[in-house]
Order: sequence, then C-alpha cells, then structure tokens
Amino acid sequence: MKDHIVISKATIDRLPLYFRTLRLSQEEGIDIISSEELGQRLGVTPEQIRKDLASFGQFGKKGVGYYVRELIGNIGEILGLHYHWNIAVVGIGHLGSALSNYQNFTSLGFNLVALFDASPEVIGKTVNGVVVESIDRMTEIVRDRNIHIGIIAVPAVYAQGVADKLVSAGVAGIWNFAPIKITVPDKIRIVNEDLSVGLSSLSYHLSRSLHEND
Amino acid sequence: MKDHIVISKATIDRLPLYFRTLRLSQEEGIDIISSEELGQRLGVTPEQIRKDLASFGQFGKKGVGYYVRELIGNIGEILGLHYHWNIAVVGIGHLGSALSNYQNFTSLGFNLVALFDASPEVIGKTVNGVVVESIDRMTEIVRDRNIHIGIIAVPAVYAQGVADKLVSAGVAGIWNFAPIKITVPDKIRIVNEDLSVGLSSLSYHLSRSLHEND
Repeated sequence: MKDHIVISKATIDRLPLYFRTLRLSQEEGIDIISSEELGQRLGVTPEQIRKDLASFGQFGKKGVGYYVRELIGNIGEILGLHYHWNIAVVGIGHLGSALSNYQNFTSLGFNLVALFDASPEVIGKTVNGVVVESIDRMTEIVRDRNIHIGIIAVPAVYAQGVADKLVSAGVAGIWNFAPIKITVPDKIRIVNEDLSVGLSSLSYHLSRSLHEND
Repeated sequence: MKDHIVISKATIDRLPLYFRTLRLSQEEGIDIISSEELGQRLGVTPEQIRKDLASFGQFGKKGVGYYVRELIGNIGEILGLHYHWNIAVVGIGHLGSALSNYQNFTSLGFNLVALFDASPEVIGKTVNGVVVESIDRMTEIVRDRNIHIGIIAVPAVYAQGVADKLVSAGVAGIWNFAPIKITVPDKIRIVNEDLSVGLSSLSYHLSRSLHEND
C-alpha cells in the first residue's frame, strides 16, 4: 500500500462496494475478474474501476483481470477493515435496532460489542445477541470492551451529550445519525450520516426528468 | 435557475445540508448570511460554498451575503423539493419504521402517504399517522395516492420483487436500502443507500490516524 497519497472521497466511498462485490464473487468461486465484469456487477464503468484502483497501487494484470482474493485483501487494508474495530450503538430505538441488526457491518469485519440506551424499558433487552446496557455504564464498558467507534442513533436533542460522553469514555471515532451538527475535539474522527441526502438527490433527478419531458 | 448545466454529485449532495441549515437560520430570524457564517454552521469552507452556489446561478451580494429566504427558495427549486413528492415505505421493520418517523423528510417537503408490509402482524398498525397496508394492495394505492417515490426497506432477498411491483404500479423513483443491486427500467430513477459506506469511511480515516501516529 502506498503511503502519503490522497485518495478522493468519491473513490473511498466506492471501495466498500468493491469490497462487498468482490467478496460475493469469491463466494461464487471466481478467482480472476475483469474490470468489465466487476463494472457490470457494480453499475460502474470499467474505466472508473481502473482509475479508482490505480490511484492506490498496481493491482491485477493487463489482459487478465484482477486477482479477487488479493484485491479483497488490498481494499480491506486500505479501508482499515483488518483492524476489526469494536463498535457500539447508542440509542436502541427503531434506527438503532436496525443498525444493530445490519448484516453488512459484520461482513465488513466490524464487531458489535455494546448497545446503550437511557430508557429502563429498553435496558436489559437483547438485540442481535448483545444486551442493551444503561448509558450510565458507558465509561467503564467502552474501556473494558475496547470500543473504537460509537454510533449515535438518539434524537437530535441528546446527540451532543452522547457524543461528549463517548469522547470522554475514549472512543476514537463517531458515526452520527442524529440530524444535528455535533462538535468533537480535533483528534476524534466523525462521520455525519444524513439520510435526507439520498432522498433529495432522487428528488433532484426526478425533477430534471420532468423538465426533460417538457 | 439555469437550464442544461451539469452540477457535480458532490455539490448536489451538499445542497440538502445547505437547505436545512438555511431553514434553521431563518427560524432564528437571520435574513442575510455570509458564506463565512454559513460555512461555520455547516463545517464547510466559505470557498466551497461560494463555488457550489456559483455553479447554478448568481445568489447573494458581494460584501453583504446571501439572502436567506431567496436562497432557500432557489436551492429547494434546484432539488425539486417544491414538487412535494409523495413517498411510500415498503417493509415496516426497524429500518422502515425509523425511515417512516424521520422528521427531516417532512421538513424537506416530502409527504409520507403510504406504508406497505407483507406480514399480517404489521398490516393495520399505524406509524407516524399512516396505516400499514398489505403489499398486495400496492398497485391500487400507488395509483390512488399518486405515489412518486418508493422506499425499499425489506430484506435483500425480497428487494428485486418489491422493486418490480413498485415499477409496475407506476412510481418514478426508488430509494433502495436493501444491500443488493436492483435492476429497474432506464426511465426509473434509483438511488441505492449503502450504510456500510459511512462506517467504512470512518474506518479508513481511523486507520490513517493510527499510521500518522506511528
């Protein structure tokens, strides 16, 4: 893996998709895959794939294709999936439950090791094999279970408070689903998930189609 | 609004965030906002904001700032939010319930008009004021309630079947949360939501931080 290179956000965003598709191909018994075939499975042009993969190294063989197992290992390493981060979900409502049950996280190598909620009605329940703990026990549990990433799935009004608690408990990264801007120290990595983006993007394209049909 | 211009996906993805932040500013009584202030609220550089907004028209006044109300109207129009699309969620498990209750969709102008599920235990329940209907009634309900967008929140194995049903019922767009590639006719707009992307992106950045500290 090359060091000190800048990879565009768009490329990084496509890598998990490459990773998953390659894993599926591997399960089908495919050892070598061409950029054309990979592109067809992904809905991405072969040119884009070659460009993406060339940006961080030399994979595959011209006229042959990509070695599936090797490429999976390389992409996994670039994405840091080989660290098998321990993750915790905070807020076990509908969204938190959906995230806790999301099979793709496991298949990408993440370990769901803790769930937190503030409601006595939810604490003690089991979701995807993990018992929901009181948010008051966060500090000790984050330390004891070596939790790297906290996922915030609480209502917006509680999100900053939960983020502060996660940071002081020692997580390195936060994935925030609450529709609010959260402030964390510079050393903490944060990714804000905004579900409105997908729907707004669809709205944009639908309205363009209407205009085209005028 | 300029016609026939190409706006980058990254810009389109930032627009809903601009829209929401401007709406919040408006509620706070702010009439004019500088790109610096808007940038601070968004976590985006003022240069990026000026570049994004310049790509589809001339908004704001040099040395003064952007007129909040005007900019909200313009961004809303670019995103097609003024069409107030009717949306339906298919699959009312945890994820479907979370999406049905997501307040941001309403605040962006989308109307949740139908929910569908196949399970007799779920059909008849009310989520966010909307009654869950049997998936067998999809064709008539999509037509009667003029549904433009179908949101797929069913397990991967059912996703293609639901997409086919939505398309033949007459929706114009599909927002797919099932972790599988869905095939639809060219005239149908589809946005695939992949929740692994956010977590993988966080993993990428965390592992880079580890390397930097080596």
